[in-house]
Amino acid sequence: MARGQAARYRFESRGDGRSPVCYHEKMTTGHIFIATSLDGYVARRDGELDWLMKQKTDGEEHGFAALMEAVDGLVMGRGSFQNVLSFGDWPYIKPVVIMSKSLTPEDIPDHLRDKVRLSSQEPEALMQALDEEGWKKAYVDGGKLVQSFIRAGLVSDITLTRIPILIGEGLPLFGSINQDIDLEHVSTESFASGLVTSKYRII
Amino acid sequence: MARGQAARYRFESRGDGRSPVCYHEKMTTGHIFIATSLDGYVARRDGELDWLMKQKTDGEEHGFAALMEAVDGLVMGRGSFQNVLSFGDWPYIKPVVIMSKSLTPEDIPDHLRDKVRLSSQEPEALMQALDEEGWKKAYVDGGKLVQSFIRAGLVSDITLTRIPILIGEGLPLFGSINQDIDLEHVSTESFASGLVTSKYRII
Repeated sequence: MARGQAARYRFESRGDGRSPVCYHEKMTTGHIFIATSLDGYVARRDGELDWLMKQKTDGEEHGFAALMEAVDGLVMGRGSFQNVLSFGDWPYIKPVVIMSKSLTPEDIPDHLRDKVRLSSQEPEALMQALDEEGWKKAYVDGGKLVQSFIRAGLVSDITLTRIPILIGEGLPLFGSINQDIDLEHVSTESFASGLVTSKYRII
Repeated sequence: MARGQAARYRFESRGDGRSPVCYHEKMTTGHIFIATSLDGYVARRDGELDWLMKQKTDGEEHGFAALMEAVDGLVMGRGSFQNVLSFGDWPYIKPVVIMSKSLTPEDIPDHLRDKVRLSSQEPEALMQALDEEGWKKAYVDGGKLVQSFIRAGLVSDITLTRIPILIGEGLPLFGSINQDIDLEHVSTESFASGLVTSKYRII
């Protein structure tokens, strides 16, 4: 289990009179689904996504819908939240937690009050709280959040889609870590558009 | 054709009496075959490759032998040269050009004099010279060289193998460029070891 990751034990009967099996169960796990340029950026320095939006991916299913189905909710940063708000219609059905120390409840538009809430907690405390609410899986979105959740050992898997373009500079997906993190390659799929999606489990 | 890339024209008979076809033919093309950590580094800051060497890839063929077969020779920087020298036996059969402004002929060991030569030329001038010698394809090796050859528009394709590990910091494969570079995804293959190799053409 990754360093810093909270854990609990679950005992389950075998149904045959023998002593129950002890499962080592992780807390709410973080799941990342994100696209980067081939040189590893999630956005240009100013947040611009033109290089991503211009890709012709009509009819392709890169796995986002399946992940959305599997998670109990989303955790995102202020930047991602404001980005999503700028799109107009709110795209998420599941509950969303915005991690921010600067936003206040007044920053949440009225029509989103039942879907979106704020948290000023640190990643570990938040995941602990979500676990107590019954969340098993959380989709973790946003460049900075991804880095801090990885560093805290709260990420279970990363689904990374490589866009076939070099943009030279921008906001990197990955940041510094305290020690190497070995990954287990789960699957890779390439698409007619040139996008390549690989899923890795953190081990 | 990429910015800065030299070109020539070749006329070829159709064999049916009609006027010959004019082919727009590139000069010697640069080909990259390199591995990076999932976070995009070719080596740790001090050049260390322990994270790469520990991968268990026995029996896997990631395409290097086929590339070596296809190229007329290799172009590498001083750092890569000294790295290869440190391995002991010289692994290359084809001619190698070391791009360096600081090395002198005395730095080439005697037993490599017929296989290795130095060039202090800039990338474009070197590729022009290699073209005049009849080289069609050159394998371009080494982190810094890859960046300068891409910037100069001298690279035709990139075969990139992703190692399933995050190392947090190191020497990045890609660097700044003057403008976005669109890539065409050619193929992707994943291996039992967890390595994923993708080939891209620069368009």
